[in-house]
Amino acid sequence: MSHWFEAPLAEIDLTAQQQAEARQGVLTKPPGSLGQLEQLAIKFAGWQGTVIPELIANKTAIAIFAADHGVAAEGVSAFPQIVTVEMVKNFARGGAAICVLAGHHSAALHIINAGTANSVEGVEGVVDCAIAKGTANFANQPAMTDSQCLDALAIGQHVINHVIADDTRLFIGGEMGIANTTSASAVCCALLNIKAVELAGAGTGLDERSIMHKAEVIAAALQTHSVTTEPLDVLRKVGGFEIAALAGAYIAAAQKGIPSLVDGFIATSSALLACRLQPELKPWLLFSHQSAEKGHQRVLAALEANPLLSLGMRLGEGSGAAMCLPIIDSALALHANMATFEEAEVQTEI
Amino acid sequence: MSHWFEAPLAEIDLTAQQQAEARQGVLTKPPGSLGQLEQLAIKFAGWQGTVIPELIANKTAIAIFAADHGVAAEGVSAFPQIVTVEMVKNFARGGAAICVLAGHHSAALHIINAGTANSVEGVEGVVDCAIAKGTANFANQPAMTDSQCLDALAIGQHVINHVIADDTRLFIGGEMGIANTTSASAVCCALLNIKAVELAGAGTGLDERSIMHKAEVIAAALQTHSVTTEPLDVLRKVGGFEIAALAGAYIAAAQKGIPSLVDGFIATSSALLACRLQPELKPWLLFSHQSAEKGHQRVLAALEANPLLSLGMRLGEGSGAAMCLPIIDSALALHANMATFEEAEVQTEI
Repeated sequence: MSHWFEAPLAEIDLTAQQQAEARQGVLTKPPGSLGQLEQLAIKFAGWQGTVIPELIANKTAIAIFAADHGVAAEGVSAFPQIVTVEMVKNFARGGAAICVLAGHHSAALHIINAGTANSVEGVEGVVDCAIAKGTANFANQPAMTDSQCLDALAIGQHVINHVIADDTRLFIGGEMGIANTTSASAVCCALLNIKAVELAGAGTGLDERSIMHKAEVIAAALQTHSVTTEPLDVLRKVGGFEIAALAGAYIAAAQKGIPSLVDGFIATSSALLACRLQPELKPWLLFSHQSAEKGHQRVLAALEANPLLSLGMRLGEGSGAAMCLPIIDSALALHANMATFEEAEVQTEI
Repeated sequence: MSHWFEAPLAEIDLTAQQQAEARQGVLTKPPGSLGQLEQLAIKFAGWQGTVIPELIANKTAIAIFAADHGVAAEGVSAFPQIVTVEMVKNFARGGAAICVLAGHHSAALHIINAGTANSVEGVEGVVDCAIAKGTANFANQPAMTDSQCLDALAIGQHVINHVIADDTRLFIGGEMGIANTTSASAVCCALLNIKAVELAGAGTGLDERSIMHKAEVIAAALQTHSVTTEPLDVLRKVGGFEIAALAGAYIAAAQKGIPSLVDGFIATSSALLACRLQPELKPWLLFSHQSAEKGHQRVLAALEANPLLSLGMRLGEGSGAAMCLPIIDSALALHANMATFEEAEVQTEI
């Protein structure tokens, strides 16, 4: 049986990309002098299928997937599990960082419950896709059943196809879930065959001793469950509902012709997973920022990703990706509105 | 005789800074998780003298200083000298990168002629402060006379005090001048006692052989004129009118209580010079981006500066600094509008 996420992705328009590259060469600046901004304009030309792509303000959808992790019981986070739903309520009320950034940069914000331990019933503005009251504690048993794993991936597909606006030009996935750096680290250790001590980091603020404990919990789980490098096996045994949903969303977005801007460590673990589930995915992903979380650089390197920003952020929620929105729109505005050498009558040769 | 640029700067409000730091500690995020965005909010609190500083959109002034360099006759640029005024006209018409960015990020743009070789008479929107038709060729003689040097510094003061709006909250200085990476490299080599081969770079697009030639021209001039490390001596002998004007503007802005966002290699050479002329200046400077120009990293390191962005840009015009405007406003919006733990009833301890 083939899965929905194995279906083909949309095609990138290489002709539009070439035309955009040619345009960059005749704008009034030394060739290449806008650096990564030139590459951004060229990529969006390919994604939108036009030499001058439209700006992404008011056309960006952010979805935050919240879920809980049974492994939180092992004392792997600096914050209590109740904070997951407390932050969901904070998202709904507009008080969290991502709410401020979404508003400031004109992006639509959707809050998705993928499976929190505590109830968010009655909280307005939360889309309920909960799989269960959190994953099982993978210190003792696989985090999910087979069907939970597939259902969690399908949350992302549902959000792309039925929650975000039809005219969306860019997707950002965020996440919230106490203990989810533990799950994300475990996923990346398994997929990349890296030892837990090399990826486990401070998360929301663990001290050195607690980070060592976190690494031991991850290493033990990978061994106990004989985790392979097969992505569904990895996801089911040590993943999380929000990590799965994000991976599903990246793939569904690319199937619909929408590029995704990947956030920090957790989101990058989902991107890695998604690239294993759907090997054509990577050209549809844009990496946004280098997180301060220890394992992020290593996982970005494995994806040969060169993120746009490095601001020492380590918050999640899609916040690092949202910081890139004005960078992208600046790049697209320069591409659309700068004069060419011919228009400005500027000489290019001595 | 003491110079105007030796007069005291405005004072940074340390109490407001401390209050802003305390506020960052109680916003709904793990402490420190917004990285450099937290530091930005705290710095602006000190500059504006209030715990919640106002956003800088519509309160940012960009001034581009254009001038020519006699040393262009030595074949040190990939573009002909006429391009300086052709680009000034492009600035005035709105076709250059900085025009697009200023418009996109709601900053005021001022174009200042500090001394171009060719006439810009009749071009609307250019403030004429020209010292001469370019500097002298420092391959043969000092670039400026004593009085030209002081007059060029005073252009910056004039622009801050009489050209930009009174309610300006942030200043960006840009520059345009064929061959000005040669002058900026010479200035930095002299001030930092670094060999020309270590700083001379591609500028607008020189090949390896031409870069070697450029380094030789710089090294010969530093020797011929017995350039010391005294900033006015350096500026007069190998500097440029726009480099001087930028340095003067940074100091005058700080005297008026306005912080400056320093652009790329040329602007950083001006910042270095300004810090030597006025040793209290550095806390009023914010470094915007790491340019792709070879010498920039070295000069930033000498200033212990850690710029916000690294996008491979190497255009000048203030364009890299302008890219930081939405980063700063995002930081200030987060600081002003995120909920505190108490407001959001989020628990902070296990």
